[in-house]
Amino acid sequence: MARSSLYQQVASELRRAIYSGEFGPGDQIPTETELMDGHQVSRNTVRLALGELENEGLILRMRRRGTFVRERRPLLMRPQDELLPRGDSRPRFDSFVFAVTSEGRQADQNIEVQIVQPPEDIATRLELVEDRALAVVRRRLRFVDGQPYNTNDSYFPLKLVSDSEIVRPGDIKRGANRVLEELGHPQVRVIDDISARMPTPDESARLQLEPGTPVVVYVRVGYDEEDVPVRVAVSVLPADKHLIRYELERH
Amino acid sequence: MARSSLYQQVASELRRAIYSGEFGPGDQIPTETELMDGHQVSRNTVRLALGELENEGLILRMRRRGTFVRERRPLLMRPQDELLPRGDSRPRFDSFVFAVTSEGRQADQNIEVQIVQPPEDIATRLELVEDRALAVVRRRLRFVDGQPYNTNDSYFPLKLVSDSEIVRPGDIKRGANRVLEELGHPQVRVIDDISARMPTPDESARLQLEPGTPVVVYVRVGYDEEDVPVRVAVSVLPADKHLIRYELERH
Repeated sequence: MARSSLYQQVASELRRAIYSGEFGPGDQIPTETELMDGHQVSRNTVRLALGELENEGLILRMRRRGTFVRERRPLLMRPQDELLPRGDSRPRFDSFVFAVTSEGRQADQNIEVQIVQPPEDIATRLELVEDRALAVVRRRLRFVDGQPYNTNDSYFPLKLVSDSEIVRPGDIKRGANRVLEELGHPQVRVIDDISARMPTPDESARLQLEPGTPVVVYVRVGYDEEDVPVRVAVSVLPADKHLIRYELERH
Repeated sequence: MARSSLYQQVASELRRAIYSGEFGPGDQIPTETELMDGHQVSRNTVRLALGELENEGLILRMRRRGTFVRERRPLLMRPQDELLPRGDSRPRFDSFVFAVTSEGRQADQNIEVQIVQPPEDIATRLELVEDRALAVVRRRLRFVDGQPYNTNDSYFPLKLVSDSEIVRPGDIKRGANRVLEELGHPQVRVIDDISARMPTPDESARLQLEPGTPVVVYVRVGYDEEDVPVRVAVSVLPADKHLIRYELERH
């Protein structure tokens, strides 16, 4: 029988102490030397164990200051929530607002609305390439409890939405998706593409990312009943602060 | 009307040349100086444009050697394929093998089977924490066309699978999921968690990652008809080589 290695055992004990609340959010955990003495292991083993917990987003190692339990667990996003039937008792927020408010935290956003020649990849997804048609983009920088958290840029074909609230700056309380429905273009099918990469310098600055934090890029294309793409939403999610979850059943 | 910025226009023209095949996989694209002259823009604008294409995984910039179109597009993974009905004409491979072979590429893997005390997070997901029960893990390092591509570690509760092929080393042609079905534990519901982080040093070495390449961590927990977790599969997917896609319909 294979046994988990020594550093995994140390990581496991620390993990249990964090999950159990013995070390709460923001608490400093023992120093490397204390952990070496406590577990009778080498400094290298302690560092491997801490590296594992850091990768999991549980702790933050700060040079010269020590190691701390992260204040916040990653935000759990459920992209399927946006597709819930309308009669559902929960309001149809987008999944970000829903996830944040479900945790009792405060969601805010800055919205900027532009009419643009969409970038090539967006134009391709919106099937606007051939006639070089314009799109409306609603660019959102989102905050949780006042801190920049992620960005979401939603593109709509201008010809579909030019007479609606979607082209006007400011929040749409009932959501842009609801406006699309009222315009006769409910999104009945979506394709979600998920990838990750390092942030651009601009993203690092806007989202106040710590060095070495990758971003998850989540792109949703929504199609109406005629299978016409009516919305492309690009979310840039700092990887240390987000977890995306899908639940599927076998049919 | 807002116009896309200069560097986005340069990026867009290069992108079109790559998608159209004018620059094919492995081709060198013009130097910074040539692009500056050709587009009448500054070096900074050219660098921003190339940075954008690099982030999209389309090109690779190699110090002193120049800029090249990447050989391969990211592998498109469709985690829903594993849940297709059994009568479907396509064999029920796991989604990785299915994705690779769909592209006419060669999929191979090394499999190592161990019986372990599962790490805390896996034990929690398999609901094995309280009785500290053992798990079987099938660790796979997967190759595409002979190159290391990703890893997949699948954990099963030992008590469920101890008399089956799952504990024996080597490939299971019809798939471990099928063996679970034969044991009376078909996975009828799954929860998929997707996140990203920087790789561990060990992952960088095994997967031969270029510096600065994050990994997507994709964890699937499968539940049987009694809602008992019967499998936890952890995939570590280099972010430059993978794209995960879900398709959802409104019910």
